[in-house]
Amino acid sequence: MAPSLEYYEAVSGGELPVKAIPTKTNGVEAVSGLQLDQSEKHEIILKTFRAFIADLCQQFGGGHPGGAMGMAAIGIALYKYVMKYSPTNVGFFNRDRFVLSNGHTCLFQYLFMHLVGFKSMTMEQLKSYHSDRTDSLAPGHPEIENEGVEVTTGPLGQGVANAVGLAMATKHLGATYNRPGHTVVDNMTWCMIGDACLQEGVALEAVALAGHWKLNNLAILYDNNNITCDGSADVACTEDIDAKMQACGWNVIDVYDGDHNVTGIVQALLTARISQKPTFINIRTIIGIGSAATNNAKAHGAAFGVDDVAQIKRNFGLDPEKHFEISKDIYGFFEDVKHRGESLEAEWSATVKDYEAQYPELAAEFKLRVQGKMPVDWTKFIPSKDQLPTKPTASRKSAGIVCNSLAENMSNFLVGTADLTPSVNLSYKQQVDFQSPDFVAACGMTGAYSGRYIHYGIREHAMCAISNGLVAFNRGTFLPVTSTFFMFYIYAAPAVRMGALQGLQQIHIATHDSIGTGEDGPTHQPIALPALYRAMPNLLYIRPCDSEEVAGAFITAIKATSTPSIISLSRQNLTQFPEYSHRDGVQRGAYVFIEDAAADITLIGIGSEMGFAVSTRTLLKERYNINARIVSFPCQRLFEQQSRDYKESVLRYKSSCPIVVIEAYAVNGWERYADAGVSMKSFGKSLPGDVAYRHFGFEPSVMSQKIKGFVEEVRAMDGGVRALRGEFRDLNGVMGFGFEH
Amino acid sequence: MAPSLEYYEAVSGGELPVKAIPTKTNGVEAVSGLQLDQSEKHEIILKTFRAFIADLCQQFGGGHPGGAMGMAAIGIALYKYVMKYSPTNVGFFNRDRFVLSNGHTCLFQYLFMHLVGFKSMTMEQLKSYHSDRTDSLAPGHPEIENEGVEVTTGPLGQGVANAVGLAMATKHLGATYNRPGHTVVDNMTWCMIGDACLQEGVALEAVALAGHWKLNNLAILYDNNNITCDGSADVACTEDIDAKMQACGWNVIDVYDGDHNVTGIVQALLTARISQKPTFINIRTIIGIGSAATNNAKAHGAAFGVDDVAQIKRNFGLDPEKHFEISKDIYGFFEDVKHRGESLEAEWSATVKDYEAQYPELAAEFKLRVQGKMPVDWTKFIPSKDQLPTKPTASRKSAGIVCNSLAENMSNFLVGTADLTPSVNLSYKQQVDFQSPDFVAACGMTGAYSGRYIHYGIREHAMCAISNGLVAFNRGTFLPVTSTFFMFYIYAAPAVRMGALQGLQQIHIATHDSIGTGEDGPTHQPIALPALYRAMPNLLYIRPCDSEEVAGAFITAIKATSTPSIISLSRQNLTQFPEYSHRDGVQRGAYVFIEDAAADITLIGIGSEMGFAVSTRTLLKERYNINARIVSFPCQRLFEQQSRDYKESVLRYKSSCPIVVIEAYAVNGWERYADAGVSMKSFGKSLPGDVAYRHFGFEPSVMSQKIKGFVEEVRAMDGGVRALRGEFRDLNGVMGFGFEH
Repeated sequence: MAPSLEYYEAVSGGELPVKAIPTKTNGVEAVSGLQLDQSEKHEIILKTFRAFIADLCQQFGGGHPGGAMGMAAIGIALYKYVMKYSPTNVGFFNRDRFVLSNGHTCLFQYLFMHLVGFKSMTMEQLKSYHSDRTDSLAPGHPEIENEGVEVTTGPLGQGVANAVGLAMATKHLGATYNRPGHTVVDNMTWCMIGDACLQEGVALEAVALAGHWKLNNLAILYDNNNITCDGSADVACTEDIDAKMQACGWNVIDVYDGDHNVTGIVQALLTARISQKPTFINIRTIIGIGSAATNNAKAHGAAFGVDDVAQIKRNFGLDPEKHFEISKDIYGFFEDVKHRGESLEAEWSATVKDYEAQYPELAAEFKLRVQGKMPVDWTKFIPSKDQLPTKPTASRKSAGIVCNSLAENMSNFLVGTADLTPSVNLSYKQQVDFQSPDFVAACGMTGAYSGRYIHYGIREHAMCAISNGLVAFNRGTFLPVTSTFFMFYIYAAPAVRMGALQGLQQIHIATHDSIGTGEDGPTHQPIALPALYRAMPNLLYIRPCDSEEVAGAFITAIKATSTPSIISLSRQNLTQFPEYSHRDGVQRGAYVFIEDAAADITLIGIGSEMGFAVSTRTLLKERYNINARIVSFPCQRLFEQQSRDYKESVLRYKSSCPIVVIEAYAVNGWERYADAGVSMKSFGKSLPGDVAYRHFGFEPSVMSQKIKGFVEEVRAMDGGVRALRGEFRDLNGVMGFGFEH
Repeated sequence: MAPSLEYYEAVSGGELPVKAIPTKTNGVEAVSGLQLDQSEKHEIILKTFRAFIADLCQQFGGGHPGGAMGMAAIGIALYKYVMKYSPTNVGFFNRDRFVLSNGHTCLFQYLFMHLVGFKSMTMEQLKSYHSDRTDSLAPGHPEIENEGVEVTTGPLGQGVANAVGLAMATKHLGATYNRPGHTVVDNMTWCMIGDACLQEGVALEAVALAGHWKLNNLAILYDNNNITCDGSADVACTEDIDAKMQACGWNVIDVYDGDHNVTGIVQALLTARISQKPTFINIRTIIGIGSAATNNAKAHGAAFGVDDVAQIKRNFGLDPEKHFEISKDIYGFFEDVKHRGESLEAEWSATVKDYEAQYPELAAEFKLRVQGKMPVDWTKFIPSKDQLPTKPTASRKSAGIVCNSLAENMSNFLVGTADLTPSVNLSYKQQVDFQSPDFVAACGMTGAYSGRYIHYGIREHAMCAISNGLVAFNRGTFLPVTSTFFMFYIYAAPAVRMGALQGLQQIHIATHDSIGTGEDGPTHQPIALPALYRAMPNLLYIRPCDSEEVAGAFITAIKATSTPSIISLSRQNLTQFPEYSHRDGVQRGAYVFIEDAAADITLIGIGSEMGFAVSTRTLLKERYNINARIVSFPCQRLFEQQSRDYKESVLRYKSSCPIVVIEAYAVNGWERYADAGVSMKSFGKSLPGDVAYRHFGFEPSVMSQKIKGFVEEVRAMDGGVRALRGEFRDLNGVMGFGFEH
């Protein structure tokens, strides 16, 4: 069925000043023959916009002018004609999402936000770009804290994956909540990229997934000026990007005069709206257009200088003496956008109101999702201690027990894995895969857009960057779970970091942690990675020791509504300690696991090494008559938040009792809490897990002997335990360097 | 000019039992019509091989059998017919390199190494796979420590980038040293991948570069069984991979019956040898072929069970009672490989001998490169202290001063950047870009394969994984330098880690470190990343404070022949301290910068924050009459190697003098050396660098006041400084979590 003209008016926003004629080229629907009758106005806006950007960068003698200037016509097409949003209510739920993956061109976004009337983006705020104002809303890259910015961008490539997450969110919510005649979610996601983004692997991973999932509500707008910092992008990139995107399942549209052809860009954007696939719009532009650095890498990241800024204006027929000049006419040109936005909102509200009447139960849940609230009381799905295993259990299995009940019952849980379904234990009853209907039909597999189990493929980085996009769609609407081996969260680290920076709550399930993972060897055994995640601001790295602590880890992660968590889990079976472990203790970061008023030493046990701490305690008593108390320490960050009194009660650092940490990682960071450590001093080794532990000295008989020696040393020291200050003892030796080949 | 039949004999190794007829299909040279007359032998080898793999995994009840079994015919084609190597001298310089990027199928490689007679891979060693033998040469993934393994693999996708590095090495050495009639380097690189590798971003980045560079000495052999852990690879990947590779500039060959068609595979491999582009060979295979788990994800990562192993043998017409059975015939079949290898070596040695006579100077340098020795005395290119700047200088500029002279004069330096040439200052006089002659001709740009400046594009992860391949080509032949902003070494972290794990010396130039990088904002300001690299085994993270320390950092990095180094540098100008700084001190990790016998406190200064330490010292004296000494601490790992006496002389932890570290990073790890810290407690902020520092409390007047308070607190403490044990003081507050939206 060929869509009618009215259809295209509808997809272009209904109220938009766009009359488009649908055509079919090579079987693909396209919008062409568009008449905008505004080309003179476009010309003066383009000139004004570009001169303004040049002024802004000149003001502070720095910044990124060139790309933003080149992209001006794209901005007019998007912000004036095609994008559905409401400047007077930036948070309008069903708004189109815009991601500036080439975040250094932020002035593009800031200036259009200003022109269309985003309240936050005043002229004064615009001018604070690169200034020393700590309250600036115009930082060097777009930041989610600022009204109208969907995701923080800057680290290249990730914006593409964020956009894929945003588009998935729409598809999923639409499939879950839309009903005939009641479309409550159907927004587009527009992702702007530069020449860099599709060089980055994370974007290429995400592009493959978007094609696979047929996210036809996603469009990439490629600002193809073919210039990067090193000069012509050709010095490192001569692939056929259009063919590559097509091979990945994308619809491709070329625009060759994207520096000024607003109409052509609008047609491409409208075509994206009706595409059956995600759309890649390859728009040729000119970096630094109008400046002496036109088409030159120098236009990328520096101001042009006073003379060139004046010349730019002369080239444009503007007055070189005037700065930051925007005419009333130009503001007037964008005036209708506000009204259109308000109409869109009103229409949506009316739809939702009717939906509430017709589908009260569904609407009630939808409302909670819109508000970012939990759809049901989650606490009842956390098993109580007596429901948890008491026999040795791998903590990855414990996590499955806790998470799967949540995932089964909570419509906001989107559980995904980087192709490790059989290993991470997150499959749940009546799980439906997130897949496109076309895929299901073509491949004879199961799945739907309403599915909440996500096969990310072997793409850890995209998984976590997409997960950021899912959360950013609307805080609280989704609680995504990602999963892979802990070691491979090093691939995802740039995205995990961006989640922490933006305060995007999600749960990363990191299984097969420590050398206990065994035979796969040193490539799979994390040693240094915990040091990164323990040091990372606004991230909780939680390493539970048994099922009860796993429950505590999930409770903590769910309560941390502005913080992502990594729950670090074992491959191998772990002894359960129901008499000692406590979910509430996890929430305080560390707690007394086994107390002993007469303790000679405190042992810190963590995660899968807790069993060693407990066995070592037994041997210390049996063989050496040394009394040890044990502290469980699943999360450093949480412990730091506790009172000094609580910390003292746990660690007793004012006593004469030295503290030894036992963990099969690099010890870095534990020196804050312990006087000595049994830790890893090198990469691991391919051996069965228990043998690997033994090989590296994680053997109670060996540890108890070393600790006994340490206790004796401390006893003999002048000043006792306090004399240890400044002399942390590495009981497994010091980490060296060099390599035996 | 159509190559002659002799040509194909030559490319297939001259002595190989292969007679191939060259044909031209669609203008592309291809080898076809091959007659091997060995298909019966192939059949029995395939069966024996597969049964052996099943036996091996069964023996230990685990491992990865399925992929290796499916790939057996590929192995016959490679190891018997096409690959040029010498089992009796595994290190033969001009050998073809083989990378098993799908490292979990290591049994494929181990068993073929055994069959062709690699001395290390005895039957006993083969059987040690997944055992508790700590001297096993058959670990769970191939490891570079083992004879015949070119690179350690396992973390998926990286092997592809390693292979690109290996192929670049050949191209570069060939262009530099080959002379007419004297081809001293011309090996191929064969890279085996599974269904996962080309899902990973790092591989896609590397694929784009290989196409751009027209590395026609590289072939990817895709074991396309279309099964991953989650089941059919289709659940997450339905792209047209052939079209995608073609779009990236690769020649693509399909083999549809790769489970048994050795001849077809040989033809494809020989075609790769004569291709003008890198070649992608898409070989359809069957995972776990012969087992009950044929074509099923269950064949991927577990043993089949006793019954199925027996059934596999029955299916193959083998005796189910016999285990690890390899007939003499089969060993005999591969016997000629050794002789051929020896001939290849002899031929190469003769060529080199003649080359030495004709080109003595070039040959002398070539010999050093083959031996992995420095081509000239590098020490003379390190500027002396009096040649270094005394005015404020960004340490990224200092690094340029030191590195560029090395790069200009040392033919083993390959300097590269992830598209940050204008920022990282590593361009040098008479620099020639590494580019293909075709690119130079087509784009009118400069460059050659002999060039030693590499534009990696915006592909940090591939850059470092390729760099690993360059080093792995032959230890010491290359000393690659990579460069990008320090923050973006988080994208490269998986590859930096693999470099450390394998002891692959290289220098990572990480500019724009700390919040001092300024306006680009929190996305560009590293906070937690140093904690990762300081904790990583066999890596030197060096953060010099001025030009003299930068010189020391390079000296350290060049001397560390089995260890990669990261040199962490400032964007902004730094005060130079020629009276205090010392290159030798860098090599000890930390040293006394400003001594004061009457010190009340020791300040640790690092990198771009050293200026704050020195200014704070002055204010402490002026305002509070507090005497401070200063320790410069560029590298924790190096300091750990020092004697206890040296450590005591630097830190004086036995004195009553407390220690405060000043660094604009998360403090994690410094607790080992300091009692208190002025550090970052959150992500950074988009502000000019100096303003950002002030904003976060890095302001001498503020710091001196806090430190004064700390000194007073310590003085008042019962027990003095020793009472600080266990109570590290965060003078900038504790790192919290949560997020203000």
